[in-house]
Amino acid sequence: MSDIPTIGIDFGGTSIKIAAARGADLISDIARIPTQDHDSPDTLLDAITDTVSTLREAHPDIGAIGIGVPGAIDFEKGVTYNLTNVRGWNDMPLRDIIRDKTGLPSVLENDANCMAYAEYRHGAGQGYPNVVCVTLGTGVGGGLILNGQLYRGSRYAAGEIGQMSVDLYGVDGPYGNRGALERYIGNRQIEEMAETKYYDAGGDVPADISPEGLCKLAEAGDPTAIAIWDTVATYLGNCLMSTIYLLNPDAIVIGGGVAHAGGVLFGPLRQKLQSSLTSECFDSLVITQAKFGNTAGIIGCSTMARELLD
Amino acid sequence: MSDIPTIGIDFGGTSIKIAAARGADLISDIARIPTQDHDSPDTLLDAITDTVSTLREAHPDIGAIGIGVPGAIDFEKGVTYNLTNVRGWNDMPLRDIIRDKTGLPSVLENDANCMAYAEYRHGAGQGYPNVVCVTLGTGVGGGLILNGQLYRGSRYAAGEIGQMSVDLYGVDGPYGNRGALERYIGNRQIEEMAETKYYDAGGDVPADISPEGLCKLAEAGDPTAIAIWDTVATYLGNCLMSTIYLLNPDAIVIGGGVAHAGGVLFGPLRQKLQSSLTSECFDSLVITQAKFGNTAGIIGCSTMARELLD
Repeated sequence: MSDIPTIGIDFGGTSIKIAAARGADLISDIARIPTQDHDSPDTLLDAITDTVSTLREAHPDIGAIGIGVPGAIDFEKGVTYNLTNVRGWNDMPLRDIIRDKTGLPSVLENDANCMAYAEYRHGAGQGYPNVVCVTLGTGVGGGLILNGQLYRGSRYAAGEIGQMSVDLYGVDGPYGNRGALERYIGNRQIEEMAETKYYDAGGDVPADISPEGLCKLAEAGDPTAIAIWDTVATYLGNCLMSTIYLLNPDAIVIGGGVAHAGGVLFGPLRQKLQSSLTSECFDSLVITQAKFGNTAGIIGCSTMARELLD
Repeated sequence: MSDIPTIGIDFGGTSIKIAAARGADLISDIARIPTQDHDSPDTLLDAITDTVSTLREAHPDIGAIGIGVPGAIDFEKGVTYNLTNVRGWNDMPLRDIIRDKTGLPSVLENDANCMAYAEYRHGAGQGYPNVVCVTLGTGVGGGLILNGQLYRGSRYAAGEIGQMSVDLYGVDGPYGNRGALERYIGNRQIEEMAETKYYDAGGDVPADISPEGLCKLAEAGDPTAIAIWDTVATYLGNCLMSTIYLLNPDAIVIGGGVAHAGGVLFGPLRQKLQSSLTSECFDSLVITQAKFGNTAGIIGCSTMARELLD
């Protein structure tokens, strides 16, 4: 493949991951820069640009850089507002800093939007004009492809599926948003639910009640684990049902750690959606696991970077 | 104004309303054809085309026809699937029938989308690229303008705000969709809520507990009526909060009978949204009453018809 390679820089919770990619294919190892190793933005930026330089030595035709960050951004200005995992990085014009330090065209995007874009361009959402992507992890995020384009919203804040309410009378979300989905099916909430359900079932709490552990237990036929995934599917299904009535998408793509639950989650989820949607909304709807795992952020923002060059 | 006039045909619950319009201005009276006067599609279609002919005699430069219908349609094919208020009109290629009978370019659209388009092009949503329109009445409908275009969804079924869930554990909606907003704030549900609340308050139930009547009572300071509108705002606010987290729109435009409640609804609604949204989503958000009332459907579809000629 002779297409121009680009670099993806993915700001995660504890480290920054950097790699070069051509389309959906990484063409370098993933370099990891732990954010807590750096006290100031300056040394962290130096570490990033050193990594970029090393990649450009190996791939001199690298043409652009994409940067994915958690939290609120201004896409037009390339500013990240609350990069809370990196000290001192509020209201940072990160796109232009990277561009000026490297001399390469750069683009800055929200990380959930990067994941959605990776799935739309190269993954499970490919070929569908309207795709709702959900990432399940510590928090619940999302990104929307509508009419074949990433939909960002008026202040670049669209796709916050984790903040949607599943229960008017429910627990408070982080912004006073009662019943926020994220407060029911975030990783920690699933573990808490597991502790309660195993305790209520009168048995021992298994050693591994992470989403991955609960998945294995459910697949092995453990009735409590199966019930836990059914409850997760009830919350997620309620929120997706509302999303589907609003947007009538072609496809729902679910990524993140919890998505690896596979059939134990997707089975009851599909059933709950079928029993609560009109045939127009359900019959041709694709409900599927994301193609990309940890690399979705890098692939999404490096793909956006590639499109800067068209 | 010398722009080409077009005709809007609005299929309502009990009658079909037809008028000629230039932009937002009706240039004829509204002709009403009661649907129950017609046993067969054929005589009803004759009545419609007779009305169109009369309008064209008065305005020979009429250039196109827009048709707004309730329920599911296929926009590309111009087919209406379940025009339940007109006997025998399932799977009807209504757009092409009207086009062939009149010889005028025609367009068929869902009625809530027509309302949204009227508000976007000429009304309360003008100038905003991302607008969520809600119609409150017997049912609750909606239409979406995203990135400056009517967003129809994959099967032309988007915008069904009334079917979104506000309560995972709530009452069943018409499609098994638990907690459907429409089952809480449809006109009939508001009247039932009023009966219960006045009864519980130990007083007499007022003679007029229609949305209009309850609005007057609340404006006059009646505490029960004020509490009813606060409850309506809680349900509507929860659903709009979810919608705003998902779409981050510029404006929310609320139409239909209940919207005439004005400040007694919009006051608590605005407060509930402010207390449950991030500043990115709330600070620049416009929350406003629709500009057009009963004429929104005609204006929306006649505007779409006009754009066929560009």
